[in-house]
Amino acid sequence: MSEIMTAVLRELQFDERGLVAAVAQQHDTGEVLMLAWMNRQAVQETLRTGRAHYWSRTRRKLWRKGESSGQVQRLVELRVDCDGDALLLLVDQHGVACHTGRRSCFFRAVRQDALVEIAAPLVTPGELYGKE
Amino acid sequence: MSEIMTAVLRELQFDERGLVAAVAQQHDTGEVLMLAWMNRQAVQETLRTGRAHYWSRTRRKLWRKGESSGQVQRLVELRVDCDGDALLLLVDQHGVACHTGRRSCFFRAVRQDALVEIAAPLVTPGELYGKE
Repeated sequence: MSEIMTAVLRELQFDERGLVAAVAQQHDTGEVLMLAWMNRQAVQETLRTGRAHYWSRTRRKLWRKGESSGQVQRLVELRVDCDGDALLLLVDQHGVACHTGRRSCFFRAVRQDALVEIAAPLVTPGELYGKE
Repeated sequence: MSEIMTAVLRELQFDERGLVAAVAQQHDTGEVLMLAWMNRQAVQETLRTGRAHYWSRTRRKLWRKGESSGQVQRLVELRVDCDGDALLLLVDQHGVACHTGRRSCFFRAVRQDALVEIAAPLVTPGELYGKE
């Protein structure tokens, strides 16, 4: 394992599930794209390959972002928070981050006392996942 | 409980600990300030008061951000992600978000194969917490 991987992993406080929270932010616009989870292996693979990898809690497997949709995230910079239990990934998001086809997963907002959709899908889930 | 609180809580998927992850982002600069946790009560109090409240996992209590440091977060907009298990709080951060006295908790970055501090404290923890 490379020195930087060892240094980063030493600073991380994985929770009782072996996970840290990871926020992905578009590096140049500042848009927060999504929140996902990483285990040790996801951190290692992200640093090794320069592509964001997460741990899927529902599928219980390592997940290379974009592996089925093509919507990969190129890592621009990895940041660690003060407690070591959260990561900020500055990324260059290809296409869309959200499985609904929207750029960001945070597309619902409380506005004027209602929860409203503030972004429309840019592509359909069918286009993303090749359902015919 | 107000209609909007009911509507938001209905969309949230609290995990086995009764928590959702919450990302606080400075509303005008886009800087990601911190990641913390919210239970139902924290969501309710945040919406009711317009000030960010979180659940402290270590202290096991509701925590009004800034209650001891004065570094409050005024809520500008609350956003919910596609799965309902993460929140994005657009806030106006008074002073600093991090208990180390830095503006953001994400002040360590992997650069040139080293983990380096990219921001200095703006105030001392003593100034923040009134230790004499």
